[in-house]
Amino acid sequence: MLRFITAGESHGPSLTTIIEGLPAGLPINVEKINHELAKRQEGYGRGNRMKIERDTVEITSGVRYGKTLGSPLTLIVANRDNKNWKSVMSIEPNDDPKSRQRRAVQRPRPGHADLVGGIKYHHEDLRNVLERSSARETAMRVAIGSVTKQLLNELDIDIVAYVCELGGIQGQADISKLSLTDIRKLADKSPVKMVDSSQEEAVIQKIDQTKRDGNTLGGVVEVIAEGLPIGLGSYTQFDKKLDGRLAQAMMSINAFKGVEIGDGFEIARRFGSEVMDEIAYTPERGFYRLSNHLGGLEGGMTNGMPVVIRGVKKPIPTLYKPLQSVDIYTKENYEANIERSDTTAVPAASVVAQAVIATELTQAILEKFPHDSFIELKEAVNSYREYSKNPEMWQNGVGNHG
Amino acid sequence: MLRFITAGESHGPSLTTIIEGLPAGLPINVEKINHELAKRQEGYGRGNRMKIERDTVEITSGVRYGKTLGSPLTLIVANRDNKNWKSVMSIEPNDDPKSRQRRAVQRPRPGHADLVGGIKYHHEDLRNVLERSSARETAMRVAIGSVTKQLLNELDIDIVAYVCELGGIQGQADISKLSLTDIRKLADKSPVKMVDSSQEEAVIQKIDQTKRDGNTLGGVVEVIAEGLPIGLGSYTQFDKKLDGRLAQAMMSINAFKGVEIGDGFEIARRFGSEVMDEIAYTPERGFYRLSNHLGGLEGGMTNGMPVVIRGVKKPIPTLYKPLQSVDIYTKENYEANIERSDTTAVPAASVVAQAVIATELTQAILEKFPHDSFIELKEAVNSYREYSKNPEMWQNGVGNHG
Amino acid sequence: MLRFITAGESHGPSLTTIIEGLPAGLPINVEKINHELAKRQEGYGRGNRMKIERDTVEITSGVRYGKTLGSPLTLIVANRDNKNWKSVMSIEPNDDPKSRQRRAVQRPRPGHADLVGGIKYHHEDLRNVLERSSARETAMRVAIGSVTKQLLNELDIDIVAYVCELGGIQGQADISKLSLTDIRKLADKSPVKMVDSSQEEAVIQKIDQTKRDGNTLGGVVEVIAEGLPIGLGSYTQFDKKLDGRLAQAMMSINAFKGVEIGDGFEIARRFGSEVMDEIAYTPERGFYRLSNHLGGLEGGMTNGMPVVIRGVKKPIPTLYKPLQSVDIYTKENYEANIERSDTTAVPAASVVAQAVIATELTQAILEKFPHDSFIELKEAVNSYREYSKNPEMWQNGVGNHG
Amino acid sequence: MLRFITAGESHGPSLTTIIEGLPAGLPINVEKINHELAKRQEGYGRGNRMKIERDTVEITSGVRYGKTLGSPLTLIVANRDNKNWKSVMSIEPNDDPKSRQRRAVQRPRPGHADLVGGIKYHHEDLRNVLERSSARETAMRVAIGSVTKQLLNELDIDIVAYVCELGGIQGQADISKLSLTDIRKLADKSPVKMVDSSQEEAVIQKIDQTKRDGNTLGGVVEVIAEGLPIGLGSYTQFDKKLDGRLAQAMMSINAFKGVEIGDGFEIARRFGSEVMDEIAYTPERGFYRLSNHLGGLEGGMTNGMPVVIRGVKKPIPTLYKPLQSVDIYTKENYEANIERSDTTAVPAASVVAQAVIATELTQAILEKFPHDSFIELKEAVNSYREYSKNPEMWQNGVGNHG
Repeated sequence: MLRFITAGESHGPSLTTIIEGLPAGLPINVEKINHELAKRQEGYGRGNRMKIERDTVEITSGVRYGKTLGSPLTLIVANRDNKNWKSVMSIEPNDDPKSRQRRAVQRPRPGHADLVGGIKYHHEDLRNVLERSSARETAMRVAIGSVTKQLLNELDIDIVAYVCELGGIQGQADISKLSLTDIRKLADKSPVKMVDSSQEEAVIQKIDQTKRDGNTLGGVVEVIAEGLPIGLGSYTQFDKKLDGRLAQAMMSINAFKGVEIGDGFEIARRFGSEVMDEIAYTPERGFYRLSNHLGGLEGGMTNGMPVVIRGVKKPIPTLYKPLQSVDIYTKENYEANIERSDTTAVPAASVVAQAVIATELTQAILEKFPHDSFIELKEAVNSYREYSKNPEMWQNGVGNHG
Repeated sequence: MLRFITAGESHGPSLTTIIEGLPAGLPINVEKINHELAKRQEGYGRGNRMKIERDTVEITSGVRYGKTLGSPLTLIVANRDNKNWKSVMSIEPNDDPKSRQRRAVQRPRPGHADLVGGIKYHHEDLRNVLERSSARETAMRVAIGSVTKQLLNELDIDIVAYVCELGGIQGQADISKLSLTDIRKLADKSPVKMVDSSQEEAVIQKIDQTKRDGNTLGGVVEVIAEGLPIGLGSYTQFDKKLDGRLAQAMMSINAFKGVEIGDGFEIARRFGSEVMDEIAYTPERGFYRLSNHLGGLEGGMTNGMPVVIRGVKKPIPTLYKPLQSVDIYTKENYEANIERSDTTAVPAASVVAQAVIATELTQAILEKFPHDSFIELKEAVNSYREYSKNPEMWQNGVGNHG
Repeated sequence: MLRFITAGESHGPSLTTIIEGLPAGLPINVEKINHELAKRQEGYGRGNRMKIERDTVEITSGVRYGKTLGSPLTLIVANRDNKNWKSVMSIEPNDDPKSRQRRAVQRPRPGHADLVGGIKYHHEDLRNVLERSSARETAMRVAIGSVTKQLLNELDIDIVAYVCELGGIQGQADISKLSLTDIRKLADKSPVKMVDSSQEEAVIQKIDQTKRDGNTLGGVVEVIAEGLPIGLGSYTQFDKKLDGRLAQAMMSINAFKGVEIGDGFEIARRFGSEVMDEIAYTPERGFYRLSNHLGGLEGGMTNGMPVVIRGVKKPIPTLYKPLQSVDIYTKENYEANIERSDTTAVPAASVVAQAVIATELTQAILEKFPHDSFIELKEAVNSYREYSKNPEMWQNGVGNHG
Repeated sequence: MLRFITAGESHGPSLTTIIEGLPAGLPINVEKINHELAKRQEGYGRGNRMKIERDTVEITSGVRYGKTLGSPLTLIVANRDNKNWKSVMSIEPNDDPKSRQRRAVQRPRPGHADLVGGIKYHHEDLRNVLERSSARETAMRVAIGSVTKQLLNELDIDIVAYVCELGGIQGQADISKLSLTDIRKLADKSPVKMVDSSQEEAVIQKIDQTKRDGNTLGGVVEVIAEGLPIGLGSYTQFDKKLDGRLAQAMMSINAFKGVEIGDGFEIARRFGSEVMDEIAYTPERGFYRLSNHLGGLEGGMTNGMPVVIRGVKKPIPTLYKPLQSVDIYTKENYEANIERSDTTAVPAASVVAQAVIATELTQAILEKFPHDSFIELKEAVNSYREYSKNPEMWQNGVGNHG
C-alpha cells in the first residue's frame, strides 16, 4: 500500500512529502518530476507569482543510483519566495504584538478556507490557515503524481490530461479517435491545454477580457488512462470501489466541485439501451467493449477500457470586485478590493488532476500485485495481462462446458 | 473513528454489517431503520422482487435497553428469498458438476461486474460475482445510514434526499426557499421522490413508456444536510478534505457515475464574481454566507451553510433489448434477451445517497468531537456551536485589535 | 489487506465477526473451526460455564460450495446461555428502574475493565462493560484464527501452541528437536496442553490445590510457526515490522501482560557472541541459520527460521478471597466475596495465542503476495520460495562478482 | 489521529519525518528536541560514530511563532557524515560497475536485516538494506517522541525511562517510592542511565571487560508515565487495546525482543490473590488502586495508575569474533572479522523507548479527546479529569441507588 503525507506552508522554507510503499528498483527520473512541476506553473491566464517560483524537486531519501530502494522517498520543493518571508514565517516564538501583526490576516476571503479554518483551529491570525490551504500544496501532489506516473509508464500504462472546457467554452472536437500521444501533443502545445485548437482563440480572448474585467474563470479537465490491467479496485466492499476512490482523489484538489466518469451526468438523460458497453472477444485482445460509456469502470473495477474521468474547477475566488466579508475581530463588514494575479488556473488544474489520478491508479495496482520489488511487479502485471486474455486459465474445475 | 464492513450475498441467508466506533448511550430506534429500509424498496418503476423482500433489521450486539453500549453493533437483514436458494448458495463443498451448474452464470452481462469480477477472482461461475456486486448490498448501507442519521438528528442536524432529475426530466421548482421538512414531505409523498409535483406526471409517463419499450432510465439525486457544525473535514491534508470523502461515498454507490457539490459542473460556466458566497455576521447567527454556490464546503470543510451534493445514477443495465456479450467458456458471441423487472431505481438511489452521506458526515463529526459517550459528544458539539458564533473566544493573545 | 471486526456481548444472542480481504477460492472447513473452538473450551482448571457453551460457528456469507468467494465472511457463534438472559440483554428501551436493576453491576471487580470502562463510557450499569470486555470475545478470535490457519496450512505453513509454564512450573523438556506435529500431539493429549509430560502431574496438583484455596494461576504459552516465506514484514517503516505487530496481537489477548520472541528477556543476560544466528547455505535449503536465538525474526522480518513467540497470561482475577473495591454510587468500600469457576485458563490461552498469531502472519503474507484468488497466492508463494533459495535470480545487473 | 512516516538512509543527506494530526497551538521547543537527540547519542559503551553526529533538528513546516499550526510538521535531521558518502549514496543513475562496487555489501551480517532484506527487495547490494535498517532511524523516532512528550508535559503528564538491567546486572533499588523527577535525575546523571547507583560500577566494569573481549551486551529498559487520564485505549475491539499498541511500539524498536507491562512475566509465578490491584476512593483523588501489579492498564485501558512498561534489547550483533556467514554471490562461507565501535546501546535504547511510548500515549489521548486546537484538548482533558473523580456525573438516569 502506498502512503504519503504532504507538508509545507506556502511561504515557508519548503514543501515536503514522504512517499512510503513504492517497490524497490523502480527507475526514478528527477527531470521528469521537474518537467511536471514546470507544467503546473504554465498556462495562459496565470499571473506573476508563477514566474518567481521555478519549482524543482530534491530527493533526500529512498533513491540510490537512479532507482528506488524500497524505503520511503522524501521529496522537497523549496519555496523560492521564502527569503522574503523569513521573519513572518519564523518558527521561533514571537511575543512582540507589533511584529506578529506583520502580514497578519483578520479579514477572511470568501471562497477560501480562511474563516472556517480560523474558527476550527482557534487561529488568531488567518495567515495560519491560508499558508496551508493555498493551492501551492498541489505542487507536492504533482511531484507524487510524477513519481507514480513513472511507475505506470514502466508498466506500459499511459495517462494524459487536458482542458475540455474553460470559461464556458467547450472543446468541440471528437477526441475518441486520437491516441493518447496525440492528445498529449496537442494539449502540450496549447497555451490553455486544450486539444481542440479551433476553440483556443475564443478561450484566450475570453481570458483576456475577463482579466480586464478583474474577474476569473473556471473549467473542466479530463484525465484518460490506458493500458490498465482488468480488475483494479473491487466490488466486494464499498471502500474498495475504484470509482469512489478516484472521485475522492479528484474532488480533494483545491477548488474542485464535481467529478464524473465516462458519460457522467449526461448518462441521466439516456436510455439504458444507449449506454451499454457491449462485450466482444478476440484471442489477441481478450475481452473488450464495443463502446466506453462507463469510462472504463464497471462494478467499481477497471474493465480494460480507457479510464475517463473529469473534474470541474470553480473560478478562483476573486477580490477584484468589492466583495462583502467581515473582520473577525471588529465584526464589521468591509468590502475587499484586493488585486490578484491569476485569471484562471484551469490549465494547471489539468496537470494536478492527472497527478492525483496517476497516484490513485498506482495505489490500486500495488494492492492487486506483489510489489516489494519492481521486477516482481512488472512480471506479475504482464503475466496477469496474458492470463486475462485467456480465460481457459481460470477454469479451475467447472462442469459441463467442455 | 467509525469503521464498518458490510457482508452478504444477494441470495445468501442474510446481509450483515458490523459498525464499530459509535458513542455509548446513543438511542437507537429499530423502527427508524426499518422505515428507511422500506423506503429503499419503494419507488415507481421497481419490479416485483422488491415485494418479496420486506427488509427488517435485527440487532444482535452493541445495543441494550435502547441505547448503544460503545461496543460494535451487528445489524442483520435476512434475505427472505434465500429459502429458494439454499442448495445453490450452500456453503458445503459440492463436487457434483451437474449440481454446481444449477443457476451457474457463464454469460456476463454488460454494465455489471460479472466479467471483470470473474477474471479478477478466477471464478468459474459468475454467480460468485453477481451475488456480491448486486445492489442488494445497498440495503446494508441504508441500515448504517439510518443509525448514523439517528445520531445526526440527536445533534439537531437534519438531512434529506430527493430526486431532481429522472429520465432526463428535471424538477423545475426552486427549492431553495423550502425547509428540509417540507422537502422531505414532498419527496415522501411523491411516487418518484421528486419535490416538484408539476413534473411528476411527465416522469411517470416516461417510466411507463420506457417499461413498455423494455428499456431503463437513470437520474440525478440530491442530498441536503443542515445544522452541521462549522469546520468538519480539514484542508491540512488531501485525504481529510470532506468534499473528497463525500465524493468517494457517493460514487461508491452501485451505478453512480458522477457527483457534484453546490453549483457543481455549472460553476465552470460562471465568472468568479458570480459564485462567491459573501460573508456576513450577526451575533445570533454567527458568521454565515449570503449565498451557497459552494454547497456548504470551503477548503474541504463545512462552512455552516447547508451541504448540498448530487449524484448521477446510470440507467440499470438492461437486457430486454438484445445485447452482445461473450460466453466466457465457448468465447462465442450471444445475444442476451433476458427480462428484468426494474425500469428505474433512481427513487431508491436517493435513499441510499442520503444514507452514505449521513454516514460520512457522522464520521467527520466523530473525528472532530469527543465521542466515547453520546452525552460528551452532544455537549461538545453544542458548546462548539456557541463558540463558533462568538470569535472573542479564540483571541488567544493577538495584538492590536482591541 | 485483511480487515476484521469482532462484535458481541457475552450474554447477548451471539458473537459475530466479518472478515474482509481473504482470497477467493480458499477451501474453508467449518469442522476445523469448530474443532478450534472446542479446544478453547477445554483445559484442566476450567469451571462449569464451558460445558454450557459448546461453541459452533455458522457462516452466513463469503463462502459457497466450500470455498471463499472473495467477498467478506460472516462468522456467527451463538451464545447458548442467552436464553436465560433475554430480558437482561434486551435491545428494547426499558424505562422501568426495577427491571433495569436486574443483574446490574455497580461494584467493579479489581483486575477487570469494569471500573475504567464505566467511567470512560459513562455507563451507569457496569454490566454494559463486562459483557464486552469478557474473554468470551476470544472465541471470535479463535474462529478467525482457524480460518487464517487453514490458509497457512494450504501454503504448507504449520503453526502450533502449547503451555510452557503454568502456576510457576515450567516444562523442562528440550523441545527444539521435536517436530511441530509431535509438539501438537503431545500438547493435544495433555489436559494442561504442556509438551513435557513429566511436569504435568505437578501442574495438575497445583491447580487442584489452588482451586481448593479459592485462588487462581497464570502461565506462559508459546506459539511456533514453520514454513513461512522469508521476508514477511519490513524494516522500512516502524509499523511494518512484523515483530511489533505480532507483539500487538499477542498483548491484545485478554489478561496478557508480556510477550517475547526467541530468547526474549533471557537475551539481556547473554553476550552478543552467544546469541548470533550464524548464516549457512545449501542449494536445497537455501540460506538458513545455525541457531534460532532471534526466534525467526531479523530486522522486523521473517528470516526463514521458525517464528517462536511467547506470551504471559496473568491469573484470572479472583474474588474468592475478599478483595477491596468501592461501590460506584455509594462510594463505600466493600469486600467482594463472589465465587467463580475457573482456576486457570492458560491452556485455553494457548489456543487463542495461536489464533491471533496465525491471523497476523496471514496478514503479512497477504501484504507481500498477490491474493485476489488463492490460486494466485499459492503460485506466488511457491515461486518466491524457489527464488529465495537461489539468489542468482536477484542479480539484476551488478558488476564484478562473477 | 496522529500519523507519521519516517524516512532517510543512514548515510544519505538527512533523516526526515512528517507528523500529521497534532493540534494547533501546541508550543514546540526545538531545544527540547535537540536535548533528547543528544541523550540518544550518549551512554557509556558507545563508540566513536556518535561523536561525529551531533544531531540537531530543523523544522520546515507546521510551526510558526513557536506553536503548531495544525498542519503537518516536517522534521529534518542532517546526517553530518553524508559529506563523505556523497558518491556512494548518490541518487543519480550509475552504470559504472566499478563505481557501484564502492562500499557495496555482499556479505550479510548475522543478526541484521541484510540478508532477508536483500532477498525480499531483490537488492544486488546489501547496502541498500542496511542504510535503512540501521538504528540510525531511531533518531527520528526520538524527535517525534520529543514533540509528543512536549504535548504530554503540557497536559501535566510526565514520562521517564531508565535502564533496569544491563549485561545481566539488575538495578536492585526499589524505585517505587521515588518520584518520576527523582528517577529522571538519577538516570540522567548515570553514565549507563541506571537509577540504582550501587550497581553502576559493576555495570561499567562489565562494559569495559566486554569491550576488551570484543563482545557486546544487551539489557532491559523501563518506561513509566504518570498523570494519564483514566480510560485511554478500549476493550471494545482488539486493535484498540492500549497494551497491545504499546507492545507494538516498543517491539518495533531495532533489536528489541520482548516487552512486558507491570509485573510482566513474573506474574505467571504468582497466585491471583497476589496480583490484584484493589480499588479505593477518596473525593480528592477519585478512584485509585492500592498496588500496581498490572502496570496501569486494565482491560486494555489506562486505569489512572502509572503506566509501567519494559522492553528487552538484545546485544548489538557483533562481528568482533569470527562469525559464519555466506557471500550472497559466491555462496561461499566466510568468517567475518570486522571491528565495530559500540559495546552496548542499552542506555540509548531507554531514550528511544521513552519516545515511542510517549508517541503512542499521545495517539491514545488524541483519539479520546477533541484536538483540533491545543486549547480545546487541554480543557477537555482537565474537565474529564474532574469528571472521572466524581462519578455522580455519570448517573444518567439509573434507578434505585439514590
